[in-house]
Amino acid sequence: MRALLLVDHGSRRAAANEMLAEVASLVKAQEPELPVYVAHMELAEPTIAQGLQACVDGGATAVVVVPYFLSHGRHVTEDVPRLVAEAAACHPGVSVEVAPPLGLHPLLAELVLHRAGLRK
Amino acid sequence: MRALLLVDHGSRRAAANEMLAEVASLVKAQEPELPVYVAHMELAEPTIAQGLQACVDGGATAVVVVPYFLSHGRHVTEDVPRLVAEAAACHPGVSVEVAPPLGLHPLLAELVLHRAGLRK
Repeated sequence: MRALLLVDHGSRRAAANEMLAEVASLVKAQEPELPVYVAHMELAEPTIAQGLQACVDGGATAVVVVPYFLSHGRHVTEDVPRLVAEAAACHPGVSVEVAPPLGLHPLLAELVLHRAGLRK
Repeated sequence: MRALLLVDHGSRRAAANEMLAEVASLVKAQEPELPVYVAHMELAEPTIAQGLQACVDGGATAVVVVPYFLSHGRHVTEDVPRLVAEAAACHPGVSVEVAPPLGLHPLLAELVLHRAGLRK
């Protein structure tokens, strides 16, 4: 069974962390059968290890981690993959892969045009 | 004439700042007639004031500022609008508005599914 683990930076502000749960809801609205979990890279729980554990507890045998980041900075190139690899080592029977971050992608350009009021 | 001013946080890393220019290119690919400018909220040039000046120098009479941010934190709710208002005060004949930031929007959920390999 496949699951998606959304990972953002994490914040000390509860409202910022709750945003990721709202993103997960939007994803589930588009893909109701897909189990979607969230985790924060730092500063807040669930951690990446906890998020991966939740995926496994939910029956996932294949997890794709999507970094909810706009840029390919150090967090995306180093920190998230390292934390995912450490967490995945505890679940040798589970396939875990890290997807590219959100940016860059033409859909972001389309979203910019939506926000600018130039798309309906 | 309308122009779009994309504003991100800004970084000390040149590669991070250059990403916004790539976003602008993606936007222009979808909307070739639209003049698209970029600015950074802090840490790098062009500043918001410089970006708005570039829009005006390019002939814009209406500028929509799109904050290239995922969350509705203080930068989006306070800092960017304040800096835009200060810059706009120097151009009384130009209409300047600040659009909502990227997040949250269903297109972001669609992008998450693309990144997870669940959309083509």
